[in-house]
Amino acid sequence: MAVNLPPLSELYPVPGIRLGTNRAQIRKKDRRDLVVIECAPGTQAAAVFTQNRFCAAPVIVARGHISLKAPRALLINTGFANAGTGADGLDDAQSSCAALAAGLGCAPNEVLPFSTGVIGERLPIDRLVAGLPGCLSALSGSGWAEAAHGIMTTDTMPKGSSRRVTIEGKTITVTGIAKGAGMICPNMATLLAFIATDVAAPPAVLQKCLGAAANESFNRISVDGDTSTNDSCVLLATGKSGLEINVADGAAYNAFYDAVREVLAELAQAIVRDAEGATKFITIDVTQGASQADCLEVAYTIAHSPLVKTAFFASDPNWGRILAAIGRARIPLLQVNRVSIHLDDVCIVRNGGRAPEYSEAQGQAVMTKPEIRVRIDLGGGTASARLWTCDLSHDYVTINAEYRT
Amino acid sequence: MAVNLPPLSELYPVPGIRLGTNRAQIRKKDRRDLVVIECAPGTQAAAVFTQNRFCAAPVIVARGHISLKAPRALLINTGFANAGTGADGLDDAQSSCAALAAGLGCAPNEVLPFSTGVIGERLPIDRLVAGLPGCLSALSGSGWAEAAHGIMTTDTMPKGSSRRVTIEGKTITVTGIAKGAGMICPNMATLLAFIATDVAAPPAVLQKCLGAAANESFNRISVDGDTSTNDSCVLLATGKSGLEINVADGAAYNAFYDAVREVLAELAQAIVRDAEGATKFITIDVTQGASQADCLEVAYTIAHSPLVKTAFFASDPNWGRILAAIGRARIPLLQVNRVSIHLDDVCIVRNGGRAPEYSEAQGQAVMTKPEIRVRIDLGGGTASARLWTCDLSHDYVTINAEYRT
Repeated sequence: MAVNLPPLSELYPVPGIRLGTNRAQIRKKDRRDLVVIECAPGTQAAAVFTQNRFCAAPVIVARGHISLKAPRALLINTGFANAGTGADGLDDAQSSCAALAAGLGCAPNEVLPFSTGVIGERLPIDRLVAGLPGCLSALSGSGWAEAAHGIMTTDTMPKGSSRRVTIEGKTITVTGIAKGAGMICPNMATLLAFIATDVAAPPAVLQKCLGAAANESFNRISVDGDTSTNDSCVLLATGKSGLEINVADGAAYNAFYDAVREVLAELAQAIVRDAEGATKFITIDVTQGASQADCLEVAYTIAHSPLVKTAFFASDPNWGRILAAIGRARIPLLQVNRVSIHLDDVCIVRNGGRAPEYSEAQGQAVMTKPEIRVRIDLGGGTASARLWTCDLSHDYVTINAEYRT
Repeated sequence: MAVNLPPLSELYPVPGIRLGTNRAQIRKKDRRDLVVIECAPGTQAAAVFTQNRFCAAPVIVARGHISLKAPRALLINTGFANAGTGADGLDDAQSSCAALAAGLGCAPNEVLPFSTGVIGERLPIDRLVAGLPGCLSALSGSGWAEAAHGIMTTDTMPKGSSRRVTIEGKTITVTGIAKGAGMICPNMATLLAFIATDVAAPPAVLQKCLGAAANESFNRISVDGDTSTNDSCVLLATGKSGLEINVADGAAYNAFYDAVREVLAELAQAIVRDAEGATKFITIDVTQGASQADCLEVAYTIAHSPLVKTAFFASDPNWGRILAAIGRARIPLLQVNRVSIHLDDVCIVRNGGRAPEYSEAQGQAVMTKPEIRVRIDLGGGTASARLWTCDLSHDYVTINAEYRT
């Protein structure tokens, strides 16, 4: 089902990080639905969260906790999002932190909670708490793959990415996992991604690194334009490699940033490849814009057009729909006679109209591919933006019409 | 298929207006695809057009012609939109006007052209011109129903509305036809609507009347958020009733405006009821907003959410998706603890969280209806806005994946 998404490759352990999962029967029977990620004392952390105003209870609690203390553990459940649950939901999130803290011997505000699933129903806190000992007894440095499975909801495949690079003579590791697969149009981070490294870095450096990398990865994908209430992305740094990066600048930082960015980009693209019902992986490049904001607005307007998305599903080079989407994008100025459109290397539109040399057969040849690049040259400046999206298929409708049944 | 859309009711002839249709084989064999609407000398007109920057050649030509002269005829074809066709498309639109003008004995710039259909391919101008004599020989004051059929594309039913009202002792008529059914998120008018009256009024009065009425009707519907390249809405006033309305003010104008607004609202709602794949007709009311712009932004965010739309398709009271859409709407301030949501009369969310008395059975009972009203109270002001939309079904995907085949 997923578009060119390979099976989970090797996820290198990160010294200082242990992971344990369990089947806690949170909402469905007999699936991994509860994950604990434990970090060694001294681990520093950064996080980015959804900007949806109706953010979930665990987002509120996690944001509060991480602002006070470095975390000792992350607690993730699937099944219920604990969003739209008011004061009860906040109590439930706090209770779950307290229960895990008791098991680990740390303070409740050293635990960050994360939830994903149905909005508006309460967490079954008894079953969640009852599942914690199973997670703790399973804790292992090699638990990444099981954790990648444990955070899945409508995902059809687990998502992980791992890099080992040598910086200043020290080999460091960056490993991350993420899940999608619908309500995906992140605006700071996506529903849920956890990345760990054994670099030593203060929170401010980690925050800058994570914010910039998220902006080039999770904040550049869209499945359906729906920004979730629960998006959360956390970067943990255990310091166990001995490599210290104390400022967000210089060769060591840049090498570290590249590794983090690559892991996030691979995870973000994996979410699109395994998006609900996706049959096509589409890269949208908008160039020659007056500003990056203009380029992004045009790119998102195309990515969110149901007509463009169904044309991709049908492998139909119906470029008029792309043209119409560009024409309605909310940007201050569009010089229609300067716009060109390429599908992969095939020029379809030049100077705002059909390219004279274009033949339907050329467009058709590109559209039948599982991976397609759409390039829009606005002819109005030097800014550019890239994002990744997918098509709109019958399976998207089926999955989301049957989600709660 | 269409949601509670009755068969075409009686469309009263408008003195001074004659309509003729033909099967010109523009794109498909043996369907009415060419329509001429002829208006008596002295007819005044107003029009609103798409704000999509990639507007079609006929939009450019019609806008130019109507700014110079009162029209003597409208020429409408389906099959091809004549959009994204560059200078050739402009030539084709002008040629079609000249051909009809020759047949009618008027000037080419007294003809307004309108096209709807596939974007990016040229009009088969030979077949179009060859079809004109058949339209002219069919011209009749009672041709409204055939014309309503003649402008259909993916519409499953023709759309018309008619009113007769007595103003200052004179009986006047307002009759209109329209077509949808996808690429519908009008921003000035919708793809295509033609309204005629026998009132006598100058263009400025007609323009104000049409602009205001379109703003309460066509500009408040959305099927898929995709604003067409070809949206056009024309109001013709033949003056044959003897009622003169020379200023856009006063009792006579208001009575006339009400009749026009009712006709436009019925047409606009008919487009949503017969939207591609629609199984539900949904009214979204947003109240207590800081501004109408805020209310509209929230309403459109809900109306365009694929997750909300598939939940309606599934008759699933998954209100968390509505909450998430409100939370991501781009408005300056949202006080989440003041938001309430009703489905019909059932309060689902109060003070930003699930209403204590709400039961899933209540929500389910509303969601199974074919017509549903969603009311959002933002609790932050006195502005409000209403719009109409539909669900997202498998048939929408099928129709738009197979549109060009």
